[in-house]
Amino acid sequence: MDARLLIMGGAAGPELLVRFVELAGGAAARIVVIATASEQPETAEAHYVDAFTSRGAGRVRALRLATRADANAPAAATALRDATGIFFTGGDQERITSVLGGTATDSLLQELVASGAVLLGGTSAGAAMMSATMIVGGDGPGVSAASVRTGPGLEFLPGVLIDQHFAQRGRLNRLLSAVARYPHELGLGIDEDTAILTDGDRFEVLGSGAVTVVDAGAASDIRVPGTGPIALAGALIHVLPAGHTFHLTGRKPGIGDSHEDREPASPARPQRVPVPAGGGGPAPAGGADRPGDV
Amino acid sequence: MDARLLIMGGAAGPELLVRFVELAGGAAARIVVIATASEQPETAEAHYVDAFTSRGAGRVRALRLATRADANAPAAATALRDATGIFFTGGDQERITSVLGGTATDSLLQELVASGAVLLGGTSAGAAMMSATMIVGGDGPGVSAASVRTGPGLEFLPGVLIDQHFAQRGRLNRLLSAVARYPHELGLGIDEDTAILTDGDRFEVLGSGAVTVVDAGAASDIRVPGTGPIALAGALIHVLPAGHTFHLTGRKPGIGDSHEDREPASPARPQRVPVPAGGGGPAPAGGADRPGDV
Repeated sequence: MDARLLIMGGAAGPELLVRFVELAGGAAARIVVIATASEQPETAEAHYVDAFTSRGAGRVRALRLATRADANAPAAATALRDATGIFFTGGDQERITSVLGGTATDSLLQELVASGAVLLGGTSAGAAMMSATMIVGGDGPGVSAASVRTGPGLEFLPGVLIDQHFAQRGRLNRLLSAVARYPHELGLGIDEDTAILTDGDRFEVLGSGAVTVVDAGAASDIRVPGTGPIALAGALIHVLPAGHTFHLTGRKPGIGDSHEDREPASPARPQRVPVPAGGGGPAPAGGADRPGDV
Repeated sequence: MDARLLIMGGAAGPELLVRFVELAGGAAARIVVIATASEQPETAEAHYVDAFTSRGAGRVRALRLATRADANAPAAATALRDATGIFFTGGDQERITSVLGGTATDSLLQELVASGAVLLGGTSAGAAMMSATMIVGGDGPGVSAASVRTGPGLEFLPGVLIDQHFAQRGRLNRLLSAVARYPHELGLGIDEDTAILTDGDRFEVLGSGAVTVVDAGAASDIRVPGTGPIALAGALIHVLPAGHTFHLTGRKPGIGDSHEDREPASPARPQRVPVPAGGGGPAPAGGADRPGDV
């Protein structure tokens, strides 16, 4: 089964929240919310537990991973193995990588996602960390090496650089700066209340905004000086609103795909059957009083 | 002689101001500043008269065109025919078109520019008005028909849409929105302290930032709904800093042109010989007391 990722650009509205719940199994969903990115995890946890519960998820709980010890604790594995959907909130993506990177939770998430056992969702910082190379900062006005800082992400979606709040924060310059430096990485700028849903090598756009894809692999010439503006000639740009698709390895938009006749709110693929708890290893039935839950 | 335009993206620094003076003839330059776009023309006029005078221009004066009557007055023609360089300040580009459009000044400017008798410069609103189709507003967060409003410009540089303060104000969305609607127009986003210098069918980039060229003519598919986000697949984007060139009709960046060995501050072409006063028609020698001057 292919990895399924629902990657949101921040400020997700009802359509995207409902979609996450449906894809995680609806009334049978068991959703785990991880607010490690947030400075105020209680608030973020409460927000998404309520958001998913009120949209019909069977069970939603928060898993507090504040330290690497938490992320290596058996209780975390227990909670994650029981989940049909795992959701990372916004905040600071470097908190996610510094707390989770290389831990047992990191390994288990990779395994669960690769096997298709869970739907992995994330918004804002929880979206940025999904890529192999993560944008961690930089808001310089121009396109230059100094306009973007990157670091390794958790690599759930290889071959891409993800930026969020894209149109709302005018972040094209930093995405262009990043792909000019790393043209093998495809730049994905996801607007607020907008998401990509991956399905193997393809993603579909959901929500009210658009996903801007910048493909500097197509560039005829790129020059990145140590200081000063970058030169980039012949990059491709695609602006893809809901219903449009993109093939990642072929680097081709599916804008011509016939999606006009589908119901926008209906799932693009059959709702997944929730996997049995513990499908990937030892998995005690989860209880509300497990350590690490809130 | 080809039309020469120096089109600045706002907040022009010393390099661009010096370049304008040099290209207008240096110590022999006779520069006319037109602040019609500005709500406070006295301030804008004083700023640029000082800026050009202090950079060695032979003579700089303001020409106040506040009304269509001013723009049809013989005094305006007299001042303009005597100029080697004419400069439009920033402000509101629609004030320029509403005061000048279709007047004797408009016709004369077209004639003087087409003949190469003057260097025409402009910044911000004075840049926007140079294009055939002018962006007059719109700052919606996404790429949509509602994110940009356009109107006819004065058409000194046909075939393009110009946006200014480009990186600084995060205006890619409105430029993409405009070219998606009008893919025959090439979108030029000029950063602050950055300019294009046209030379026939080609322009060169000057200044500290970059010019972003969006070519939606290359797009494989474009869909512009009445409301909601635009879809645009396969547009080309070029980010061109100083020294790089672009061929307008061929829609090709000259990023590979060998400019590395030129002196950045030296003119790319021989300084122009100031044209004799009145080269294009009756032209009394200008005096400081002409009506319309300040």
